Amino acid sequence: MEDDVLKKIAHILELRKQAEPETSYVASLYARGINAVLKKIGEESTEVVIAVNSGDKKAIIHETADLWFHTLVMLAQCNLGPEDILNELEKRFGQSGLEEMANRKKSQ
Amino acid sequence: MEDDVLKKIAHILELRKQAEPETSYVASLYARGINAVLKKIGEESTEVVIAVNSGDKKAIIHETADLWFHTLVMLAQCNLGPEDILNELEKRFGQSGLEEMANRKKSQ
Amino acid sequence: MEDDVLKKIAHILELRKQAEPETSYVASLYARGINAVLKKIGEESTEVVIAVNSGDKKAIIHETADLWFHTLVMLAQCNLGPEDILNELEKRFGQSGLEEMANRKKSQ
Amino acid sequence: MEDDVLKKIAHILELRKQAEPETSYVASLYARGINAVLKKIGEESTEVVIAVNSGDKKAIIHETADLWFHTLVMLAQCNLGPEDILNELEKRFGQSGLEEMANRKKSQ
Repeated sequence: MEDDVLKKIAHILELRKQAEPETSYVASLYARGINAVLKKIGEESTEVVIAVNSGDKKAIIHETADLWFHTLVMLAQCNLGPEDILNELEKRFGQSGLEEMANRKKSQ
Repeated sequence: MEDDVLKKIAHILELRKQAEPETSYVASLYARGINAVLKKIGEESTEVVIAVNSGDKKAIIHETADLWFHTLVMLAQCNLGPEDILNELEKRFGQSGLEEMANRKKSQ
Repeated sequence: MEDDVLKKIAHILELRKQAEPETSYVASLYARGINAVLKKIGEESTEVVIAVNSGDKKAIIHETADLWFHTLVMLAQCNLGPEDILNELEKRFGQSGLEEMANRKKSQ
Repeated sequence: MEDDVLKKIAHILELRKQAEPETSYVASLYARGINAVLKKIGEESTEVVIAVNSGDKKAIIHETADLWFHTLVMLAQCNLGPEDILNELEKRFGQSGLEEMANRKKSQ
């Protein structure tokens, strides 16, 4: 079911590529170019940090959803989608993947 | 299936709460406190920006996976999980939700 | 001379604490609380990254000035000023300070 | 005097361009390329946000000094220096410049 929501959003984000900027927030982001969504990612990740520091769970959920959403918009602009990220995570964490990553990271 | 990977990671992240810091990257992050993972979120979101600017799709996937992964670690530390974020996104984008958000955002 | 500009800005930022939010950008930032300027710092540091990636020197100067300016606004809200940061840097880099820091950092 | 410290650091940063990466933190940053210092800027701006949220003045000074320092390293790598940023700020805030910027920003 949750998988459905990421797919559903990715589908809507594709449709918005045909929309007029005035008619949709996403279409207006597209029209402003890739840097506009990158700035949003910088801003939203800062809002996640502030929300976690505040300890307000509702704010943490809200801001993390904003951050994930804007990464989905960025992926759409790069002709990528959530399945690319989920496949990458699957590759890392399938089987004993988590520990492999742990070792890789610790040795950096 | 993709849904499975987020759930699977969340499950592993719960298990790591019992692990010794020396045995796992995640356990070592937990041991360093919530600010350690917040710094990683700041760093990884910058790496996403750099990857998108480079145009290298493999790097974009890699860095976005890193960013999502570290938000999952943060959520675990806040006793939240991916289903909280997916439910929030479902609420926003179910039915005509995307346009509702669009309107809300544009009026900010 | 350059020293003067940081002091001058800090002086203006103090004066703005008495101004009405509608009359000045800084006063409107103050009125929105400390998190508003923190979000700006997150956004402006992302814009610095984008500018450097673009290689456009004018943009690098513009965005770095924006970032420094918003850190000055944050310092004013915390009842600190540029002299606190410059004294800290002086302490680190006076004499052979740079190498001391180098050693400290490398061993982290 | 404070002006001196920014100039002094810029001078040291130029000298480090000839140093071996093993001998200095700055030389090791240079050797890792421009993206290494951009990641530091992303990380340090997040640490500023965390420090301000904590309310610890010593930490705010420490992290802001780190952020300014790494922007100086970035400027050196771009063959720019603190005087470029201070001149830009002088241009904006000389005379009635602050209000001009205020108007520009509010109309964005």
